[in-house]
Amino acid sequence: MDADKKKIALRMIPYGIYVLTAKSDDEVAAATVNWVTQTSFDPPLVVVGVKANSGALATLKQAGSFALNMLGKEQQGAAFTFFKPVEHVDGKISGEAYEVGSTGAPVLDSAPACVEFNVAEIVERGDHHIVIGEAVDVKTKAEIEGRPDDAILHMRDLGDSVFYGG
Amino acid sequence: MDADKKKIALRMIPYGIYVLTAKSDDEVAAATVNWVTQTSFDPPLVVVGVKANSGALATLKQAGSFALNMLGKEQQGAAFTFFKPVEHVDGKISGEAYEVGSTGAPVLDSAPACVEFNVAEIVERGDHHIVIGEAVDVKTKAEIEGRPDDAILHMRDLGDSVFYGG
Repeated sequence: MDADKKKIALRMIPYGIYVLTAKSDDEVAAATVNWVTQTSFDPPLVVVGVKANSGALATLKQAGSFALNMLGKEQQGAAFTFFKPVEHVDGKISGEAYEVGSTGAPVLDSAPACVEFNVAEIVERGDHHIVIGEAVDVKTKAEIEGRPDDAILHMRDLGDSVFYGG
Repeated sequence: MDADKKKIALRMIPYGIYVLTAKSDDEVAAATVNWVTQTSFDPPLVVVGVKANSGALATLKQAGSFALNMLGKEQQGAAFTFFKPVEHVDGKISGEAYEVGSTGAPVLDSAPACVEFNVAEIVERGDHHIVIGEAVDVKTKAEIEGRPDDAILHMRDLGDSVFYGG
């Protein structure tokens, strides 16, 4: 398999940008992710690829739940913030105010929508593990005009040469 | 959970449009899908949500392999063609010429890129099952100018009110 061609072909898959959050007894995790797809209507399931050795994966595993905070079009700053380790100070996560969701996962005030999930199963394959979540709660903060998939921050909005995939 | 809010929030996830193909001893399958994400760099894994009772799932299961044909920006016609049952006539699939890929899966001549996968595992959860594929071959047919994720047909290109998700 030609590595360059594989990279180009897999980078054709378009992605939105999400902040995955989770709270266990000891830790609060928040990490920018993009490998997300729905996989079932009933029950409503999604798959998220989460780095195998990451604190986010360890925390969501312990919690048994997580949230996907959908970032809005202008939230490039939040996306880059949560590429870095989290600072949990003054009741904010790396400067972002949040409320505690029904699963315990942090729901960012600034995100236009947030879906909470119970972990249904984790498939431990590859350098990121395959987290299967069942949607159990949702909050929308902003009225969405037009298509919902136009309201979210996309990978391409982070810069012409920014990719995570390939 | 508010059903309308859940629908809006899950429809924020942006999707590309792909024709999933597979060939078993008896059947050739080709179906338009959009629930796709990469989940690992090494090995290169993707997840595809495939309708539980579909011929496409039965065929790829028997074959142990499948291909994702990335549709180009102008291929709305192909996308709608493969929402319907396949006609395999005169060596074409529903009018689309193809070659046989290294896994046996049909590689559409008209698609700018095609990645072939071996089935690593299928997680049977929900109304679509979670097919985990490891990329084993790739063909790119067209020179891609600019971002690869701009070169692919997106869900929004199928019409203002077309969604599959929520």
